[in-house]
Parts: sequence; structure tokens; C-alpha cells
Amino acid sequence: MAFVRNTWYCAGWSKDFSRQPITRTLLGEPLMLWRNEAGEAVILSNRCSHRFAPLHKGCVQGDTAACPYHGLKFDSRGQCVHNPHGDGHIPKAAHLRSYPVAERAGVVWVWMGEAEKADAQQILPEAHTGFLQAVEQFSVATGHLEVSGNNLLVMDNLLDLTHAPYVHPKTVGGAPEDSVEAGMQVGIEEDDRSITSTYFCPSMKPTPQLRPLFREEQGDFRVRMRWQPASSLAMRLSMTPCGQADGSGVVLPLLHLLTPIDEHRTHYFFALGRNVALGVPEADAEMAEFARRAFEEEDEPMISACQAQMGTSDLFSLRPVLLQTDVANVKARRRVEALIVQEAGR
Amino acid sequence: MAFVRNTWYCAGWSKDFSRQPITRTLLGEPLMLWRNEAGEAVILSNRCSHRFAPLHKGCVQGDTAACPYHGLKFDSRGQCVHNPHGDGHIPKAAHLRSYPVAERAGVVWVWMGEAEKADAQQILPEAHTGFLQAVEQFSVATGHLEVSGNNLLVMDNLLDLTHAPYVHPKTVGGAPEDSVEAGMQVGIEEDDRSITSTYFCPSMKPTPQLRPLFREEQGDFRVRMRWQPASSLAMRLSMTPCGQADGSGVVLPLLHLLTPIDEHRTHYFFALGRNVALGVPEADAEMAEFARRAFEEEDEPMISACQAQMGTSDLFSLRPVLLQTDVANVKARRRVEALIVQEAGR
Amino acid sequence: MAFVRNTWYCAGWSKDFSRQPITRTLLGEPLMLWRNEAGEAVILSNRCSHRFAPLHKGCVQGDTAACPYHGLKFDSRGQCVHNPHGDGHIPKAAHLRSYPVAERAGVVWVWMGEAEKADAQQILPEAHTGFLQAVEQFSVATGHLEVSGNNLLVMDNLLDLTHAPYVHPKTVGGAPEDSVEAGMQVGIEEDDRSITSTYFCPSMKPTPQLRPLFREEQGDFRVRMRWQPASSLAMRLSMTPCGQADGSGVVLPLLHLLTPIDEHRTHYFFALGRNVALGVPEADAEMAEFARRAFEEEDEPMISACQAQMGTSDLFSLRPVLLQTDVANVKARRRVEALIVQEAGR
Repeated sequence: MAFVRNTWYCAGWSKDFSRQPITRTLLGEPLMLWRNEAGEAVILSNRCSHRFAPLHKGCVQGDTAACPYHGLKFDSRGQCVHNPHGDGHIPKAAHLRSYPVAERAGVVWVWMGEAEKADAQQILPEAHTGFLQAVEQFSVATGHLEVSGNNLLVMDNLLDLTHAPYVHPKTVGGAPEDSVEAGMQVGIEEDDRSITSTYFCPSMKPTPQLRPLFREEQGDFRVRMRWQPASSLAMRLSMTPCGQADGSGVVLPLLHLLTPIDEHRTHYFFALGRNVALGVPEADAEMAEFARRAFEEEDEPMISACQAQMGTSDLFSLRPVLLQTDVANVKARRRVEALIVQEAGR
Repeated sequence: MAFVRNTWYCAGWSKDFSRQPITRTLLGEPLMLWRNEAGEAVILSNRCSHRFAPLHKGCVQGDTAACPYHGLKFDSRGQCVHNPHGDGHIPKAAHLRSYPVAERAGVVWVWMGEAEKADAQQILPEAHTGFLQAVEQFSVATGHLEVSGNNLLVMDNLLDLTHAPYVHPKTVGGAPEDSVEAGMQVGIEEDDRSITSTYFCPSMKPTPQLRPLFREEQGDFRVRMRWQPASSLAMRLSMTPCGQADGSGVVLPLLHLLTPIDEHRTHYFFALGRNVALGVPEADAEMAEFARRAFEEEDEPMISACQAQMGTSDLFSLRPVLLQTDVANVKARRRVEALIVQEAGR
Repeated sequence: MAFVRNTWYCAGWSKDFSRQPITRTLLGEPLMLWRNEAGEAVILSNRCSHRFAPLHKGCVQGDTAACPYHGLKFDSRGQCVHNPHGDGHIPKAAHLRSYPVAERAGVVWVWMGEAEKADAQQILPEAHTGFLQAVEQFSVATGHLEVSGNNLLVMDNLLDLTHAPYVHPKTVGGAPEDSVEAGMQVGIEEDDRSITSTYFCPSMKPTPQLRPLFREEQGDFRVRMRWQPASSLAMRLSMTPCGQADGSGVVLPLLHLLTPIDEHRTHYFFALGRNVALGVPEADAEMAEFARRAFEEEDEPMISACQAQMGTSDLFSLRPVLLQTDVANVKARRRVEALIVQEAGR
């Protein structure tokens, strides 16, 4: 499986981690996710080095997790610290692969590559994740979805939001006549660290999702979608009264964090914030429901249907016809390819 | 996948095609089936050339079908005629593969091979399909079934009807003691265009299906099953009072049109006519139910069980023991093989 | 598929065989299991040599089984004895592969390898199977389970019973503090014909399964698990009042007979006897239920979870960390490997 490995992937939201282990497969590897006694998020291989039993089904006691098959105990660095059988000898090789973890603003990041290269500087900057905990400014909903498609197909979907009027006309997109046909302006910005798609629709009707939050008939609608390798997308969506300064109206910061399960499935972690109707439970529920419908009932079926029609082929090998609106996602795919080649030392 | 491609396959009954597109996979290719404004049946690749989205989920407007993902529009020849994004430029390669189609007597035929070789002369002659619309002479029921077996296994089943007394004793076959053991005569005829199996059982009890239509205790039972490459089977079944001329009693014309879905599944389109009880709804319902039971509950489970026990192996590679009654289907298989070799230019 | 073939495998319990054929896949081969008129167990290939139809769906008459597709009849040695079609000629090759069978004490054994090497001397000795029919001494319950794991993983599970306190604390194992941590002694014995694991726990609390049969607070608990190639495991479990001679208390003889379905699934035939509460229906039901829970709800999920985490890889290719308690199963695996190599003539 060809993935960028020397990068930080979202392994889950902070609330997914507790003393009770769960399992989650990332980049083809089954992992055990839990918290040690100090409350630190721990990510270890979920395959016992003895008989490959699933460790998350065992018990956690203090800082150790016990294998449910023969009772070997491993500490939170993956070292076997107890063999209950015979003379208790612990073979040298009896340790689990352990992965560097960093927890920031409610996100647990994991480094699936060479541990010695794990560099906290490369974590998605707080400028993009800070809203998750800025409770005075934003109300936030988070979610998690498994998409039956390669992670790059999900990235393509997010870096080319011109699909919104077709896939999401009743949720997070407007109708074609309100956005695309009304002259939506699409741009792209790029630097060493990121690629950003921008969209501007002056005097657009608010999308169904925005209607309860933005009560005017029309407004200026702006979206920025910033991709940072390997697969973090930070989004900012705003709607202002026509002609007024960006930020003066409704602002929705979003995160889309993609982590490969394997070559044909992807963990899709999403978060949505809003700077209005703070702390209003009905607004929370409505925003979460719009996101669920858009991502789970609209995006996911479309991406998985494309994947199904592509079979196991790589996108470029099928010679897709590319449009101007694919510039951002093609650039991002080229960067991912370069990173994979670089890691392989080719 | 090894299939004859330069031939006409049944893509569906005329009634399967409407303004609302559907998808159907033929010879491994997902297709979109619909009708343009003029009412003509249209068959295009169902994979958008941009991102491989399933086009049948989009909207048809006039003579164009719009992709449900990003709104590209294609006309009924597969040409992209509208890109709603940016400056609207349409890349040269933005067209869908389009397949030659011919509609005759309620059957929609498609040519899956080289379009320039599509030759309407090769369509199954009206002599065999005419009954479908000869409402003065025949009442007709049609059906469609997906068989979990290679198309040649279904063809084998139809070209060797000696299975009928074993598989269908309570529907379309008689009991072994009434047919096989009573001396059923099996023959074979052959010409450049076709191979025909014939069966004659003098003084046989009518099969359960025939009993309501042929009220005598016994009759002369005749069946002709004519195969034309690649996979059209036209059948004629008759029962006359003993000793009387063929055609003087009940005549049932049938069609069995087989189209590969892939190597291990087959579309089975069938039609049954009868020259008696014309326009009697109870007879229609009964005839359709007998066919459904025979094909869906008796043939299909047998063929799919054989396929399952063969795995992915080709029939001949497993060295089957062949009987005299396999002559017709072995001849037909040899012709199919020769056509595949010829198309491959080997 | 790499299996030992020149050996006797359990094909089923005697009660599984009747005049009505059933099908069961052993070592990747679909078989038809039935009894001929003399009541002898018969095992033939379930694939008709004509069109590979599943023979178990046909009819048995006297000593012949008829194919449900075209009516060919085969006798109980697999020879085709009737072709109902044409001149009735029976092609020379029209016979089914037939397998040597031996029925002993309620077990039907089958030899899946070279028939001429089938040697009844190699059948599991009566010393280990006799309890099945020693109704004066033992009450017995039998069962059959399909495990989603390679047969060697099931063998490993049985030859290293140190998993019992972790996987079965509420059924057939004691709690860790009552067995492992209380100093269970594990031994191994070996001869040309077998490998035996032994376990001795002096002064142990009875396991939940034993409590209704052994009413004292503590007792000496002994287990012997004897493996004979390729995959027969005969077990003897006893609990005596502390310090008394082995056999003076409760004795449970057990059989675990493993037959590969394919590389990743295994037929698990088990039998449990007890020398107490003879003929007490409640004790029968309770013993059967304990076994079902232990094997079906505890062992099977653990083995199939290990198999799932191993994918299609062989155990040793994944470089497991081995413990002292793996000595018996590693020795057994080495013997199985040697037998496979020897049969392949490498």
C-alpha cells in the first residue's frame, strides 16, 4: 500500500480515547487506541507479538494492557512486562510496535512512519485547529465516517468544491443557478506548505445549511479550503451581507482530516464550528445533522460509487479528462506522489 | 474477459428503456440505458470521463444527460456538450463511449465490439422474434433474470434439454418415465448461421405447464432449440394430438437471450408466447409463473451450483465427461471459441 | 493448499451419515456423504463428472445416487452405472472420486490421500475413542463447529491450554489466580506417534464446568492433551480430592478432531464424556452447553480474530514471539511440515 507515512494523521478525536481500548485500522495496520494512567493517549499495534490476538479485547490495568489470549502484559510503550507462564521469562522480541502520538486541541495525531523523524512542528498549526476549543467564539460539532474510497478521492472531492451545487443542493451547496451559473469565482493559492482553493459568490442565496444562521435574502459567500500534506484540510466558510467585509457575518471554520484505512477506504474525521447561535442546542443539532447528511448521504455514496467504477485502478492510470477546476487536486496529488517516492528513496 | 464482442447482444426489453436512465453491466462494462427526446434507445458508458461517476444517477434534460457529480452534460452520442465551470472549455477527450443500438420487435440490441463493424443484417431474424408483437397470433410474457454462472453454462443448459425431466419435472419438463425413458428422440441440425437441437416425444403426457393449454391425456411433443452466435436461442415447442401435423395444436415460441454480465454472471432475458388462450389474463399469469419457477427456482440454482463447484475454471480445463447429448453445446462452444480467437487476431 | 493427505481425518459423527446425502467440504474438496443400502458410510466427490453438478441434491435409490441435473447414476464406489440418454453408453471416465472410509466407535474417518496407502492401523486407537460407546462408564455429548481459522491455529489452541484461564475463566478454565498464578505445572511428553501436553494444578478450585460434578472446595486438577498426526487430539481431564490418586474422582475424556475445510477454515468435531452423573439428562444438557459456550463463543472468536489479523500469511512467516508454553505446538507444526514435504516427495 502506497501512502505517505512520515506525516501526522488524525487517529481520532480526543473523546475517542479512554481507559477502555478500542481498535482502529490506519494505513492497513490494526491499532489499539487507549489512555494510560496519566491520561495520555497511547497507540500500539493491536496484534500481540505472540499469537497475533487482538489486544483491544483484553484488560487494561494501570499502565499495562493484557493480551486476552494468554495474558502477556504490555506497557504503554509496547514493551512486554509480564509473562504469567512457566518461569516468566520474557523474550527480547516481545514488544509491540508503538507509534508517536500528539494531542492538540481535541485531536489525537499519530505518526505512522519512522519514529525518529516524528516532528511536532509538522502538526497542523493551531491557526486551523484552535476553533475546536475556542468556546467563547465558536460552537463546534465533530464526527467520524468511514468512506469506501481511496483517501485521495476524498481529498479530490474537498479540493474541488464545484461539486457542491450538484451533490449538495439541499444541504451545504446552493443550486447551480445560485452559484455556478451565477458566476462563482474559483481560485487557487499555493505555498511550500499548502495548496488552497478559494470560491467567491457575490450576492448568492444562502445555502439551506446557512439559512437559519444568516437571515438575509442574499449575501457574499466565500469559501477557503486549505490542504496541507498529507491529508489535512482546513476550511473556512463565510457569508456576509452584500458588500461588507469578510468576517463581519457568519463564519464557519471546518476541519476535514483524512486517514487511510487501506487503499480503498478512508477514515473521514470532520469538525464544524460556527460563530453565531453560540451554545444553542437546537443549532448544534441542526448543524450536525446537515453535516451528517452532506458527508454521509451525499459525498460518501458519490465517492464510493466512483471508486467502485474505478475498481482497483489508480485514478491517473484510467486517464481521466481533467478540468480547470481540478488544478488544486492534481497539484496535491503530485505532491503526495513526490512524498511517497521520496520516502521510498527512489 | 474473453467474450465475443462483434455481435448483437440483448441489452434489455424495449420497456426497460425510458427517459429515466438505468444502469446495467454488460461484458464487464457499466452502461447507462435511456431514451433521448426522439424516443430512441441510447446506450452509453455509465462512467463519466472526468471522475468516473455513475451517470445514470444524474438528470436527463432534452437530449442530454448530466453528470451527478460536477454537472458535465453529454448528448445521446456521448459527446460532452456543456461544462458549467470556469470558462466552460470542453476538453477534446470529454466524451463517453457510445454503443450501436438497434430496436426490433420489443428487443433492444447492442453491439459491444468495433462500432464500424456493426451490421444490422446479423440481428436475430424476425422469423424468431416476430411472435413478440404478433398480437393476433400469440400472447406473450417476458422476463429478466441474473444467473450466477458464465453465459456458456446457460447456453449449455438450453442446448441440452435432456435435463428437463430431472430439473423441471413439475414445471416445463415431464417426468423421466414420460419422456427420457419413453424414448425421447434427440437430434441436431446445423448450418453456417446456427445450431439446432430437436426433441421428439410421441404420445407423451403433457408437462404441467402445458396441461391447462392442452387438455388431452397424451400428445406428440416437439421442441426445437436454435442457437445463433453469440448467444441468442430461439425455441419452438409444440404439442399436437397424437399423429397430427406439427403446428395443429398448441405452439409456444420462446426466446432466450443471454448477455454476459461478467465471466461468472449472465443476464438471461426470456420471452414466452402461446397460440392459445389468447388475451386471457389468467393464462398470462400462469404462463409467466411457470417460466419464473422453471428458470429462477430450477435452472438458476443448478447452473450457479455448477459454477460454484467449477470455481473460476473454464469448463474444458476441468475435463468434463461428455455425453452424446452434449454434441450441440460442444459445437456451439467451439464456434464461440473460434469467434473469440478470430477477433483477437490470433 | 498444503495439507497432510495420507492420514485419517474425521469426516463426521456416525449420526451425520444417513440415506439422505449431505455435502461437506474437506481439504478444499466438496464431498457427498451418505450410506448405501448395507448401511455403510460412503464418501464420494460431490461434483458430477459430466457437468460438475452437486450430487447431494439428487436422489439415492438402492446403492446408487442420481445426478440432479441429467440423471446419471453412480454406485457407492463412484462408478457411473446408468446413462438415461441416447443409447445409454457410459463413457469410461464417468466415475466419481471415491475415498476410503472407516467407521469406528461413532466416528467416520476418511482418507483423502492416495487410496492404496490407506492403512486402518493408523486410525486413532480405541484407547482414545472407546469412551464414545462405553455407555456403562461414560455419558457423552458430541458437537461440530466450523472455525474461521487454519486447522493448525486450532491445534495450537488445544496443545497450549495455558490460554484457558484467560479465554475460558467462566466455563472450562479457572481464574488465573486459581491456576496459572497458583503454580500450574506444564509438561510435555513425546514419542514416535504423538505429542502430549500435561497440566497439573494441585489444590485448585474446580472450574465452573466441574463444579456441579465435583462438589468439594478444592481438588487436584490434571489435564493430558495428546496429539496424533495429522490432527486428532485426545484429552483426559481429571479432578480428585486433594492428594488422592488420579482417576479416583471425576474423569472427563474428550476428543477434538480437526479437519481442514480449506486453508482458513476448519471442521472442529468434539466429544465430551464424563464418568459421573451417568445418564442424567440435566447433566448432559449442562455439559453440552458448557462445551458449546467454551468452543463456539470463546475459542472460535479468538482463533478467527487471530486468523483475521494474520491475513493469509503462514504463522512462522510472521515471526511470532514463541514462549516455553509453545513447545508442544511448535513440535507438532514441525511434524506436520515434515509430513507435507515427505508427501510432496521433495
